[in-house]
Amino acid sequence: MTDRDPIAAAHEQWVDHGWSDAADGMALITSVTRAHQLFVERIDEVLRPHGLTFARYEILRLLAFSRRRSMAMSRLGSLLQVHATSVTSAVARLEKQGLVERRTQESDRRVVLASLTPAGEALVERATADLNDAVFATPGLTPERVREATELLSALRSAHGDAVALPH
Amino acid sequence: MTDRDPIAAAHEQWVDHGWSDAADGMALITSVTRAHQLFVERIDEVLRPHGLTFARYEILRLLAFSRRRSMAMSRLGSLLQVHATSVTSAVARLEKQGLVERRTQESDRRVVLASLTPAGEALVERATADLNDAVFATPGLTPERVREATELLSALRSAHGDAVALPH
Repeated sequence: MTDRDPIAAAHEQWVDHGWSDAADGMALITSVTRAHQLFVERIDEVLRPHGLTFARYEILRLLAFSRRRSMAMSRLGSLLQVHATSVTSAVARLEKQGLVERRTQESDRRVVLASLTPAGEALVERATADLNDAVFATPGLTPERVREATELLSALRSAHGDAVALPH
Repeated sequence: MTDRDPIAAAHEQWVDHGWSDAADGMALITSVTRAHQLFVERIDEVLRPHGLTFARYEILRLLAFSRRRSMAMSRLGSLLQVHATSVTSAVARLEKQGLVERRTQESDRRVVLASLTPAGEALVERATADLNDAVFATPGLTPERVREATELLSALRSAHGDAVALPH
């Protein structure tokens, strides 16, 4: 087993054990996991000084994009493609940090809205500028290969049931 | 903001806000995150009945690949590219499950070895067969695009400092 690339080494083992039909898929999925881990490390490093995780940043970002700086909790969950419980706990934490407020919608008291506070609005713009500079503008591939990779991942997401439209 | 694809919608917002130089990178990184999430869901579903997480499965798999069915904890960490503390807690859990045993190496008492038990060996083979069938053999892209995507992710990992050798 080579030390150089654990994923290539695992691929070799898979083939050697007679699992050739699954070896390439294993290598792809393990590569996605590793790439995710590398990005999470870089993103966490940028967001930690702002007191944010990526999950909480994404909520602030969506609220800042919305016209009223506020959104139903259920809509946040569907846009972020995560469970309602994850949204609830992240928003509760953001509320404690003074970055978000929760209130019920006046026209329908069953709907809980999350709204950005002025502090949340200021913070998300600073965090976005830092993330753009330190991570998103330099993902590690040429612009052409970034698009190629995103296209392949879109096809992958689509195969797993995600609604997908390619960035243009 | 379109509802159809949250990542394409975010990309649009990024461009509209004047962050064009970071928009494609943001879409790629968010796509990696989402693809990871989709795979984790499928993998967890397969491993749950076996009482395993993917992290613990990977440890069993590496031990089963090794000649002596045993490996230094430090080597597990470097092959899995995770922190020593993560390996320690995963192995402690596997030990409680009766799937792994820890002992010090006789030639060097400072080295802690993790060894597969017969129960661990049997379980990892069943779990691998299930993962191969239900996930790895059907990653959601054509074989050619699977290889293309893995190659792009390898380039990405390499750009972030990973030692990379392409599967052949």
